[in-house]
Amino acid sequence: MKNIEKYVKNISLQAKESSRILRGIDEKTKNAAIQAMADEIDNSREDISKNNSKDINNGKKEGLHKSLIDRLELTSSRVDAMIDGLLQIIKLDDPVGKITDLNTRPSGIKVAKMRVPLGVIGIIYESRPNVTADASGLCIKAGNAVILRGGSEAINSNQAITQCIQRGLANTKLDTHCVQLIETTDRSAVGALLQMSEEVDVIIPRGGKSLIERITKESKIPIIKHLDGICHVYIHEDADLEKAVDIAINSKTQRFGVCNAMETLLVSEKHAAQLLPLLQNKLTESGVEIRGCSKTGSYINDIKKASDEDWRTEYLAPILSVKVVTSIHEAIDHIAKYGSNHTDAIVTEDKEIANIFMREVDSSSVMINASTRFADGFEYGLGAEIGISTDKLHARGPVGLEGLTNQKFIVYGDGHIRK
Amino acid sequence: MKNIEKYVKNISLQAKESSRILRGIDEKTKNAAIQAMADEIDNSREDISKNNSKDINNGKKEGLHKSLIDRLELTSSRVDAMIDGLLQIIKLDDPVGKITDLNTRPSGIKVAKMRVPLGVIGIIYESRPNVTADASGLCIKAGNAVILRGGSEAINSNQAITQCIQRGLANTKLDTHCVQLIETTDRSAVGALLQMSEEVDVIIPRGGKSLIERITKESKIPIIKHLDGICHVYIHEDADLEKAVDIAINSKTQRFGVCNAMETLLVSEKHAAQLLPLLQNKLTESGVEIRGCSKTGSYINDIKKASDEDWRTEYLAPILSVKVVTSIHEAIDHIAKYGSNHTDAIVTEDKEIANIFMREVDSSSVMINASTRFADGFEYGLGAEIGISTDKLHARGPVGLEGLTNQKFIVYGDGHIRK
Repeated sequence: MKNIEKYVKNISLQAKESSRILRGIDEKTKNAAIQAMADEIDNSREDISKNNSKDINNGKKEGLHKSLIDRLELTSSRVDAMIDGLLQIIKLDDPVGKITDLNTRPSGIKVAKMRVPLGVIGIIYESRPNVTADASGLCIKAGNAVILRGGSEAINSNQAITQCIQRGLANTKLDTHCVQLIETTDRSAVGALLQMSEEVDVIIPRGGKSLIERITKESKIPIIKHLDGICHVYIHEDADLEKAVDIAINSKTQRFGVCNAMETLLVSEKHAAQLLPLLQNKLTESGVEIRGCSKTGSYINDIKKASDEDWRTEYLAPILSVKVVTSIHEAIDHIAKYGSNHTDAIVTEDKEIANIFMREVDSSSVMINASTRFADGFEYGLGAEIGISTDKLHARGPVGLEGLTNQKFIVYGDGHIRK
Repeated sequence: MKNIEKYVKNISLQAKESSRILRGIDEKTKNAAIQAMADEIDNSREDISKNNSKDINNGKKEGLHKSLIDRLELTSSRVDAMIDGLLQIIKLDDPVGKITDLNTRPSGIKVAKMRVPLGVIGIIYESRPNVTADASGLCIKAGNAVILRGGSEAINSNQAITQCIQRGLANTKLDTHCVQLIETTDRSAVGALLQMSEEVDVIIPRGGKSLIERITKESKIPIIKHLDGICHVYIHEDADLEKAVDIAINSKTQRFGVCNAMETLLVSEKHAAQLLPLLQNKLTESGVEIRGCSKTGSYINDIKKASDEDWRTEYLAPILSVKVVTSIHEAIDHIAKYGSNHTDAIVTEDKEIANIFMREVDSSSVMINASTRFADGFEYGLGAEIGISTDKLHARGPVGLEGLTNQKFIVYGDGHIRK
């Protein structure tokens, strides 16, 4: 085994061991630990800022793009937000230990389900350094140990934050190995982590599509992820036009670079003549370029033709592809063919049509008369989210505390045996 | 692409297409389809028997072990049981479409969860040919298309049963591609199926450990599985001795070759002197060989010493490893080190001790004062089970209809947009 593999193996074994202790810890103790983590961050603002400056200076030297430098920066208000995020997690209900579905069987045994932690979670992220604190808080609250692997450009910031977290944990009954950072920027550490299927129960990657594709390909460990957010809004023939315009514009323009923004608009042919010129005006005001099907081109001028590639593209930019459809079935077929199982919405006043769409569109969030931008852990009331899943197994959609746990069966007998 | 890959790709694409239709089908129609499947099997007993005889004759020619020939055989009563299994599935509640956790958010949107099919399920099995019917019935009822790949020794039986199922489907609104059998015995078809991650949503392997290990290693598709059933019974120091003896003997001897049979008994030192001779008598009566730790050897004679390998072994045979422990923590540590997350039981009269065991033992079924043999879909009230999962994500324990579905988010608005 190479040194880097030994290093990652050791971290993984420590995480597994600490997750065994964490599994039995009550809510009050976990909350005290998260509070201690927040306090230590608050008390270490200077140290965090110093280390963050190192990262920013290194980034500038290496010619990182301005937007990446901005993403790196931990301003005072971002540190406030990080602390506040942890305090919010304290307020969330602890799902662990909840017993449901209790049922006495003809044999006399009582069968129920108990909610339990997953165990050890590996988080691989390219995001802002605040993920270090957010992810740690969520994992601890759900009873899981966490192994963090942040982007190499944020290594000093992530180290400073992890040290705060571990000092916080050291003041409580929790093992400091509940939260560990992989402290080498050697990229092979990621590959090593993805082989630790004996110790690590799930990998959650957060970052660009290429990172997530690479991790999915290499991992021997189950993954919770989303690759793309190719979200659709379908305006049915009976839609209320005012709602339709509001929802389409909000879904596209409220923010461009987010996974729950609309990328393709599907418009019923009955509405096309009236709606498309109206939408074109408003979208143009917001600087959005339209790429349309040939029918779209017959209702509005000065647009590009959408290619097959357009229907498959998550623009994350002020571009919208538009298709005119003749029925709900054509809309559902289009979503099935080109969608990414993320978030899709219908605008309709017909409950029966809404039910068909709701049942047949196989996405992690399906919406009726609402903006796709609502697909979010906070908006859904989960509290913070650790990510969004477009997979078919386990959690679908925004993943909060519940998605970081699972249910096992528990059986109560009184000497019962099987005949 | 090789011919075999093209063949499997085509089956997978057809399954995906038919799963889209199946997703929207109501319970009544699905039940009618399952009834038609059962009727066709009932009407084709002669054809099934003829094809089954072919498999048996081929098996005898190839020198298959007597137990495998027995497993292959579809006697009249086994065909009855297959039909009855389908009729039982009709009676089970359809989980698909159920809406729960409805919650109005401050923004005004209503958020809920809806239970939905997984999509396309691949079942790879070495078991009796009745799995062909059972698995098809369960998958259809849960709204999933299924691709079946049975053992090559049962190919004629599986073809005959699948033809009945498809004739049944042809009489209903369901697409016959909802149930497809891979009709080649070429082993590379399995490898091809495991690459179809665009079309197939989950693979459920049923068979020996080596099959499941191979599939886990090769698959690009998430898997629901269990590898081992190394089940423990721990007799705590305050256990009622009569219950303890009943549960230990039943867990070990009710059937030997099953995954929920006890393989290791953990006995509190306080009870060892009294219990172990008693258990030795009873186990010897049932022909069970004991392999014990050194302490065990000081309480009873004529036993083999258990090696480290014994603690890790699923005997599936009349052998039991026994360890004397000094505390519940030693018991839990042993289970964490050597167990397989399948089923573990404690015998105790102390609720607090029971709670510690229930919470800290990370197995798919954890039992208090009950035989491990209860870990079963029928015993738990799930109806039939498609398998047992010892994984940490998605379904844990016996997997019934609910484990063949998942929940997505649904959102109801009335023109709501995100501010």
